[in-house]
Formats: sequence, structure tokens, C-alpha cells
Amino acid sequence: MNSTPEEEQNAAEENRPETENESISRREMLKLTAIAGTGVVLGMSGMATLMSLKRADPGPGSGMSATKPQADSGDVIPFYGPQQAGIVTPQQPYVCFAAFDILHQDAGQLLKLLQEWSAASALMTAGKPLREGGNVTSPPADTGETKGLSPSNLTLTFGFGPTLFQNNGEDRFGLASEQPAELSDIPTMPGDRLNPQWSGGDIGVQACADDPAVAFHAIRNLAKASKGTAVIRWVQNGYIGAPDGQTPRNLFGFKDGTANRELDSDAARSQHVWVSSSYTPAWMANGTYLVARKIRMFLEPWDRATLAEQEITFGRLKESGAPFGKKNEFDPASLSQFPASSHVWLARSAGTKMLRRAYSYVDGIDAGTGEWDAGLFFISFQRSVKQQFIPMLSLLAKLDALNKFTSHVSSAVFACPPGAGEGGFVGETLFRSGNR
Amino acid sequence: MNSTPEEEQNAAEENRPETENESISRREMLKLTAIAGTGVVLGMSGMATLMSLKRADPGPGSGMSATKPQADSGDVIPFYGPQQAGIVTPQQPYVCFAAFDILHQDAGQLLKLLQEWSAASALMTAGKPLREGGNVTSPPADTGETKGLSPSNLTLTFGFGPTLFQNNGEDRFGLASEQPAELSDIPTMPGDRLNPQWSGGDIGVQACADDPAVAFHAIRNLAKASKGTAVIRWVQNGYIGAPDGQTPRNLFGFKDGTANRELDSDAARSQHVWVSSSYTPAWMANGTYLVARKIRMFLEPWDRATLAEQEITFGRLKESGAPFGKKNEFDPASLSQFPASSHVWLARSAGTKMLRRAYSYVDGIDAGTGEWDAGLFFISFQRSVKQQFIPMLSLLAKLDALNKFTSHVSSAVFACPPGAGEGGFVGETLFRSGNR
Repeated sequence: MNSTPEEEQNAAEENRPETENESISRREMLKLTAIAGTGVVLGMSGMATLMSLKRADPGPGSGMSATKPQADSGDVIPFYGPQQAGIVTPQQPYVCFAAFDILHQDAGQLLKLLQEWSAASALMTAGKPLREGGNVTSPPADTGETKGLSPSNLTLTFGFGPTLFQNNGEDRFGLASEQPAELSDIPTMPGDRLNPQWSGGDIGVQACADDPAVAFHAIRNLAKASKGTAVIRWVQNGYIGAPDGQTPRNLFGFKDGTANRELDSDAARSQHVWVSSSYTPAWMANGTYLVARKIRMFLEPWDRATLAEQEITFGRLKESGAPFGKKNEFDPASLSQFPASSHVWLARSAGTKMLRRAYSYVDGIDAGTGEWDAGLFFISFQRSVKQQFIPMLSLLAKLDALNKFTSHVSSAVFACPPGAGEGGFVGETLFRSGNR
Repeated sequence: MNSTPEEEQNAAEENRPETENESISRREMLKLTAIAGTGVVLGMSGMATLMSLKRADPGPGSGMSATKPQADSGDVIPFYGPQQAGIVTPQQPYVCFAAFDILHQDAGQLLKLLQEWSAASALMTAGKPLREGGNVTSPPADTGETKGLSPSNLTLTFGFGPTLFQNNGEDRFGLASEQPAELSDIPTMPGDRLNPQWSGGDIGVQACADDPAVAFHAIRNLAKASKGTAVIRWVQNGYIGAPDGQTPRNLFGFKDGTANRELDSDAARSQHVWVSSSYTPAWMANGTYLVARKIRMFLEPWDRATLAEQEITFGRLKESGAPFGKKNEFDPASLSQFPASSHVWLARSAGTKMLRRAYSYVDGIDAGTGEWDAGLFFISFQRSVKQQFIPMLSLLAKLDALNKFTSHVSSAVFACPPGAGEGGFVGETLFRSGNR
């Protein structure tokens, strides 16, 4: 009642352990807050702009943290490099994937956002908190919920959607001439039940980590940094349950992604994953295309199917993941050894390879049916959507025995540029391309 | 075309690695499936009932698994015991919580369900798959997606909601006389925005584990086993991000649950968590009450608040979790040393203790507002809802400075019976109580 907001703020500030006269200021502050009650709280945010009580700058990199996250604990995947991380990186068990829409048509603001995002990504993947200022009268730069956690092998992978280049024929940022010819929405397939609200997006960001708290924290802080420039269009969380280094099982209980082993070598990745330096547009060299499909899996009817039906539908033995008549998951088998029309038979029939990086999702119970709203958040990386992903999808959409138990409910495609060099930013090659 | 369903089934069966004449049967089967196409798949489940091709019984406990989950890896928490696990058990990082509604009024069926659930829980917590039959013409007993994963310290904790005893005045199962006087819905508080669809439930099941795949698998398989008797009313997934043994941080970035340390001793737990043997009804002895509240946290306005506002609102220092003017989280501090009307000050003012076991949740983006649909799935255990939980909630609902940034969107209360002895089942004391 008798105190001004400035006095209350001073009291709060002085009362922190950094100050010398701890006991006096604490008592003072408590008296003040007791008098003012919630009024202190309500008045505080407006007041912050009036105040200039800086804390000592803790120096670059140390952020606002006394006991630093264990950035030296070994579970750091470098953000900077010729190619983006999170693509051929061994799959971390958790994903938080967000698609953002840009709110305006200001190419300068977009460029600034990409720069800020890259700088923030470099800090977060190194396990360091974001920082700006560092006094109590500012909102904390970092939301803080992962303080004390290890970097958890966090990767952040960025991609540009078709609408970033042109939306309803409009060249929003002067980037239309740089749009790759094959960067467009995946054609709707028979059986697709795509929800436009969960599909597409101007920019896709895949956050993967060993801890879901770390993956979410990264997306949350990128969203916070984008305020006024971008909004989240959709988000999908997911996980894999896999013993270290083994092929994950999907929610149908089958090992899913066995074929990834064919892409273990650099040579195979150059052939199937990475865009080559002779590609047009040139800014995509060392980049790749990301396809995301949310595939709902109807767990209840699946769980009522016999083991024989499940195995003939999927195309492998459930327990071992082996081809029919074989003992082990990686035992060689020719195409004709898989049941016709099975999922694996068709995927192999398509003859195209891609790097799968799918996650299971459980979004609770479908309020309409009372059944599980769960399935596979399919992510794949390939150097060509048209030559690799679409032929396979078309074949599967037409013939896959698994379709009886699944429904594609979202679709998105993003052109992932190459990685950024130290101090650079992801998307630099696009913004600095010769045509601009 | 020329093959009968029986022949196809035989071919599929013979084609498994267990059989001797592998190459012939495999070729035969592939020919048949190629001819029949998806017809094989469609016809298989109906056919299963006609077939009696049993596989060799792998013996008790070994289930359908060749390479067993690592039940000896040390991360097993026994299901059987005088008190249920998952209460004073050190908090595992993942929860999948389900509330079930019973579909009928048949006490015998309810009893059978509880017996089946306990038997299944004992298997799953030991890392063993469920089993029944074990031939390819039956649906697999276990959904299989956690095969190869460790038991992951899975716990399954069961509780009975008020509606199990009486629903709209109806004594559904002849249990009304056994309803504890204090087992009733928590009164709606000012500010509550409870969604009835996410609240209540006849039976609550808390699955906690070190791996979200293991927690979900447990709830999924309990739901599968309950088919025809119960349906899931609501499900909530959650996680904590905490370095081992440290107090988790909530999504506001603050350490939440510091007071739990006061309940570390058996004496304190007897006083505050476990129902005593002199309690009425007697079947609750060694049980406890579980309260679940889904508390949405408005992350965007919180992240715009200054650090000072955040700290005065929550009542502790953000970085360290220490009381104001102190250095460390567990530094002793009297009530008067916390900011008045802060969350911690009020919670301590209430003077009641309870065991908190809360999880963060991120359910994506609110389609209406474009903001995060995220917060705290609060779970607490206490020996009395009326004497411990409700006084604290009432005070917080009226005065908590944090209310500006939160909204309670669901509420549930469950009476957790004692644990089951080996071969017994959770709920046995209720069903065998003297009054019945």
C-alpha cells in the first residue's frame, strides 16, 4: 500500500542470493508482497519495462546458469556441418515435429528468423540455455524447464514447404524462382483422409532427442523466438521403443525400418538421400527432401486379427522380423519370397529406397469412436520425392494389404537445405543463391 | 483360386521356421498368396476359428518369445506386495494414465476383470509377454510392440472411482455399502473449467515406466483384456524431465515437488499417505487415495512474464529452486520467508502434506487459440482427500497467484486398495469384505 512498484521491484531484486544484505531485503520484500498480495504479481510485468536493474552478465555461453547442463557429457550432436543433423544421425527415441506458417511477406524478417533459429539451435543442441540480457525485469531468454538435463543428442532439422515459395500463385518472399520443380504437395491417394489443419506448412522443424523434454523445449523456444513472424501450424510428438541400435517395432508389433540398413554406407546415402551438387536449384546441394505422413493405425481390429493374418499382411514374421521361412531379420530374401500384396512385398516391389525415420504416436482416445488415436508418424528422407517416395506411396495406396488397418491423416513435404557452417544459418544457400 | 482356405493356412503355417520342409512350403505359400492376393488376408480371421493348428507350447512364463525381454536386467518393480507399487516408488519418467468405465452391472464380470488385470500386470511388470494359446490362427495374446525392451520399472496402480460404488444413486455392483465416506468428486472450485469427458471414471489405472512404449503397452493390453466389460473413458500421457533423483521441473521451468522430501520416511508415509488398519471401510487399510487433475498451463503469457514476476508468483527462485534469499533448493525456510500469495507459500500455508507424483503433458496446439495445449498432469496420493487435498486446493483456488497462468481442466479421484499377495488380485479386500 505504502510502497511504490519500484520499491517492490528493488526489494525483490535485492533479495536474491547475489546481494549482500540478504536478511534485510528479504524481510522487506516479504512485507511488501504480503501487503500488496497478488497486486504485486499483476503489476510486475508492466513495471518491468520501466526498470533497468541489470544482473551481472555471466559471460558468453554460460547463460543464466550456475550449475551448467552437462554440455561435456558426450551426448552432443554438432548443429553446424555440411549437411543438417537429424537425417542420417542414428535415430533418437523422441521427436517433437512442428510446422510453422510465416505471418507476413517480409523476406528480411524471414531471413532474420532463420538466422535467429540457427543461432538458438546451435546453443540448444550444445546443451546451453538461450540468453539475452539476464536481469529479473526481463522475461527469461530460455524457458528453463530443461536446466540440468544433458544435451540428449538433440538435433534440429529445418525444411521449406512449397507454400514458402508460392502460396496460391503468390511469390511471397521473392523465392518463387528458387522453388524446386518437385517441391509440391504429394498427390492425394485413394484412401487418404488428410486433415489440412495437420498437413503442409511453410517451414518444418524436426526436433529429435534422447529426452522428450529436450525435444519439446527446443520447439517451444523456437516458437517463442518466432513471435510476430511465424505461428505453429501443427505439432506432432512421437517415440520409438527400441533396444539400442535395433530396428524399432511399430504399434502393430512389427519391426519397421529393416530396409534402412541398405542405406548405412556413405555411397548409398549419396545415391538415395543427399541431393548432388549438379542439382537444380543449386541451393539444395547437400540437402534432401523430408516427407511426413501421419498414419493412423487401427489398433483394435489389428489386435483381433490372427497372428497368421498379421504376418501375411505385414510380410514378415512378427517375433523375429525375419522374412517368411527365414530365422533372422536381416537374412537375405528375394522379392518373390515375401507374401504378395503384403506391405513389405509392395514396398520392395516399388524398387525405390529412402531413409525411414518414423515414430509411433499415441494421441489418446478418439472421442468419436472410443478407440485409440494412435499410429505411425512416418518421416522419410530422399533425394527425390517424385522418383523415390511417390512411386512407392502410389503402389502401397493401391494394393497394400495393410491399408485395411491404416489411414493417412496428414501429409507434408519439405525441402531441407544443406547444413550451416559455423556462424552461418540454415537456408543461407537459398537466400544467397545467384538468382537473387 | 484352386486352393481352399485350409490349404492356404497350412501353407502359411508350414512356412514358418519351426517346420522342416521350409523351401517347399514357402514356395507353395507364396504361390497361393500371389493367386489369392488380399483375399487371403480378408479371409484369414474368419478362418482362424475353424483351424486348430497349434504351435508347440513354449511353457509357462516364456510366452511367445524366443529372445526374452531382459527380465533379469534389474529394472523390475514387483507387482505383488502389501501396498501397491507406483505410489512411493521413485517416480519413473513416463506415465500413461487411463480411466475405465464398466459397461454393465455384473459383479462377477467385474471381479473376473480385476483378477485378469492383476495377472496381466504381474506378467507385464516382470517384462514377460501375455500369452494364451500361441498358435498362428489366434490373435496374439500380447500386442508385441515392446518385445525386446526391458521391463523398464513398470508399475501399474489401480484405484476405484466413486461411480463404481454408486452411479446416480444406483448400487451397480452391490458395493455401495463399502464406499468410503470421503470418496466423492472433488468440489468444483472457482476458476475450474473441468471437462467431464476427461474427468472421473469407474477405475483408474496409472502405468509408470522408464520407457513410454512400455507404459502405453501396459494400458493398451489391459484395455484389450477388458473388451466387453470396460471401455477407456480418458487417457493422459506425460513425462518428467529430471536428472536422476532430482526434483523435476514443470513447464514453467520451476522445480515442482520439492516438498516430497518430507515424505521420504516410512513414518511420514504412514502418517500422510497410507490408510491405517483402523480405517473404515477396512478394505482400504494399506491403501491410499489418488487425485488426478489436469492443469493446463498458459505457456505463452508465462514466457512473456519477467523473471521477477515468475519467481514471486511461484514462490521460489527459478534457477536453483531455493527459497528467496537462500542458495539451495532444500535450504530450510519458514513460511514467512516465501512471498505471500505465491504458489509455494499457499501450498505450505494449507499445512497439509501429500505425495506429489505429477507429470508434464504436451498435447500439441490448441486448435482454437493456436497456443500450446500443455501443462501439468497433477497426481497426488494422500490418506485423506478431505483432510489433505481439498483444504489445499480450496486455498490455492482462491488465492494462488499462479491461477492467472493456469486452468484446471479435469479432475478425478480414486480409492486405491492395498496391494495383492502373490496369486491374489488388487481389489480382493473390497470383494471379500465382511459386508458381502
